[in-house]
Amino acid sequence: MAKKKVRRKKAAATKTTAKRPRLEQRDRKTIQELVGMADQVVSTARRRRDPHLDIPTRSLSNVKFNRRKRFIEMGNNTNRRLLFNLSQAKSYMQTMLVGSGCKQLIEQGKNTSIRGLYYMLKHTIEGTKENTFEEQSDCDPIIEDVEVFLGSLREELHLYADKRGEMVGNLQLEDNGDLIDCSRMGSGGYGIPSIVEPSAIKFKKCRAKFVLHVEKGTVWQRFNEDKFWRKHNCILTHGAGQPPRGVRRLLNRLHNELDLPIFCLLDNDPWGYYIYSVIKQGSINLAYESQRMAIPKARYIGLRSKDYERCNLSPSVRIDLNDNDRKRARQIAGYPWFEHKKAWQKEIALMLKNNFKLEVESLISKDISYVTEQYVPDRLTDKDWLD
Amino acid sequence: MAKKKVRRKKAAATKTTAKRPRLEQRDRKTIQELVGMADQVVSTARRRRDPHLDIPTRSLSNVKFNRRKRFIEMGNNTNRRLLFNLSQAKSYMQTMLVGSGCKQLIEQGKNTSIRGLYYMLKHTIEGTKENTFEEQSDCDPIIEDVEVFLGSLREELHLYADKRGEMVGNLQLEDNGDLIDCSRMGSGGYGIPSIVEPSAIKFKKCRAKFVLHVEKGTVWQRFNEDKFWRKHNCILTHGAGQPPRGVRRLLNRLHNELDLPIFCLLDNDPWGYYIYSVIKQGSINLAYESQRMAIPKARYIGLRSKDYERCNLSPSVRIDLNDNDRKRARQIAGYPWFEHKKAWQKEIALMLKNNFKLEVESLISKDISYVTEQYVPDRLTDKDWLD
Repeated sequence: MAKKKVRRKKAAATKTTAKRPRLEQRDRKTIQELVGMADQVVSTARRRRDPHLDIPTRSLSNVKFNRRKRFIEMGNNTNRRLLFNLSQAKSYMQTMLVGSGCKQLIEQGKNTSIRGLYYMLKHTIEGTKENTFEEQSDCDPIIEDVEVFLGSLREELHLYADKRGEMVGNLQLEDNGDLIDCSRMGSGGYGIPSIVEPSAIKFKKCRAKFVLHVEKGTVWQRFNEDKFWRKHNCILTHGAGQPPRGVRRLLNRLHNELDLPIFCLLDNDPWGYYIYSVIKQGSINLAYESQRMAIPKARYIGLRSKDYERCNLSPSVRIDLNDNDRKRARQIAGYPWFEHKKAWQKEIALMLKNNFKLEVESLISKDISYVTEQYVPDRLTDKDWLD
Repeated sequence: MAKKKVRRKKAAATKTTAKRPRLEQRDRKTIQELVGMADQVVSTARRRRDPHLDIPTRSLSNVKFNRRKRFIEMGNNTNRRLLFNLSQAKSYMQTMLVGSGCKQLIEQGKNTSIRGLYYMLKHTIEGTKENTFEEQSDCDPIIEDVEVFLGSLREELHLYADKRGEMVGNLQLEDNGDLIDCSRMGSGGYGIPSIVEPSAIKFKKCRAKFVLHVEKGTVWQRFNEDKFWRKHNCILTHGAGQPPRGVRRLLNRLHNELDLPIFCLLDNDPWGYYIYSVIKQGSINLAYESQRMAIPKARYIGLRSKDYERCNLSPSVRIDLNDNDRKRARQIAGYPWFEHKKAWQKEIALMLKNNFKLEVESLISKDISYVTEQYVPDRLTDKDWLD
């Protein structure tokens, strides 16, 4: 098996040498880090020590909210993973395997999904009945280990997530050599890639003054149909619910590199609040990515608990809160980044008092284009949002 | 309330008259049909008869497979819905309400989601505590009733579905006035709109010789990254699982108007078979749309049960069938359009005998680009597919 594998690798290497792409600087750096991870094994062994990896702890206990930077960060705790330890040897081997798979991807200039990587690396270890991985769920946390260990985003390891979300607006960008004019994308829009790192996506001309990010594709279609982005000179995105990594990273880059304010039009419910929280402060599970994903200055321009009265909405559009909604709302009110914000506390308290939630779509009961012609323009004019 | 409503309607009419768009021929026809539906009430009343609607029956008993056309069709059974019948008066009123909402959308040249229409029409009937609709699930079947009654696709009633799926390839099209060159869409692709009727999407230049439709966004990314569509001069689409209406209708138009064969690259599992079945013959639930959605000549180029041996795949990529898989596989084998196809019977029998399924992603265990450089090109060269 070992022999066979070497042969296969050699064949693959020969096959790809000719067309091996020139590596971008960022890719060279990631390769260096991956090679460094492997070199550690050798150097530790030479010093007659047990090879090990100190992997930053990915648990709630090692996550904290950085009040100055205003996003979630990982702490400094690590767990040592030893090769010569019966309970850790397998995950040690898996970590090295993931590292080697990612190196292969980067060298070939290719990307794959986390499911693809799982299939790439899954095999039965010769002479045993042991598989390197049984399920994808064995492989996913190891990928996250490698990410935090190297301090690399998944995208830099050439792994892509599922692709969701679209964009239109006054922005031109270059996507792997193709010039994309987001102001000429019709009703379909530009599908936001899952890898939007600067090596793949370069911003060109941008006339837009802000980004309006909406929760759902159906609401995005309303705004695009009404050409909101043209009238208000902005960029319009959606993430089909909780935005995937590509969308979050793109919003982060639009904000940081082009200096565009990000407005989030979300539902008046705990799920909408939570989406905002993730866009703004990062997700608790993936705290180590916050630095390149979170947008602490993102603004919430979504439906508010007071809108029921303010917009004179019909009682028929109210959706009763259930137990889970109430529980989630209280949890969110307790997040460190909402805890000291009076406006947010008031917002969440009023939703609990109302005992109902409101969807953006419900504004259609006023008029088909009420949301694009009145609701959002009024909030922008009055600077009436939460942050 | 009645008065108030009239006033609101009038206001809306005045507001939109100025910018009311010139209606496309298809829209004028749909309006005529909607008006005809309403006129029936008046003319029936004048003849001193009970107003009623004869709505084609949307149930399995009224669905049949047309062996000549090779897709699922509705039969001729109808259910009569009477205004003066206590158990039917509400759904009669709801049917008229949906018709009136769609007319309003078409006249204003706007589209909305089925959730949007539900919110548009939901209100408490004055003087009662009765709502026109309680839940969206009350409204959705009524929309389908109106569709079958008028013989209009949902899209012609100006209702859009959620938007999923992307496209790249050697095709230029016009989307609501914007020229989209699908060969210059980078890694992101063109987001397939949910409404792709000829009034919105016009095909321009097409050099492509066929369409490769893949099941998942992650597989699509592999094919796009490897520029498969450029090498093989084709169009590449995906539908993020079971393709939404917009994707199915677009494939149907590409096939019928541009004469392009449609190849479907799906997983070797009952879900993959089922997706193919829906693309090919239409869905049983929405049989009345088959005529404009189904593609009887679509070809299955997905993973086959024999591929485990043929491609010499590692045992580690097999996924055991569960009870539900076996049940679904037998059901699908019994579909009238698979029943008499020897190759399909053999395919499904072999999967049951194997007792495992295979995903397209598993081919990465051979090589990262095995699927784009070998698997699909070989099948195309050998004309080795199922239909």
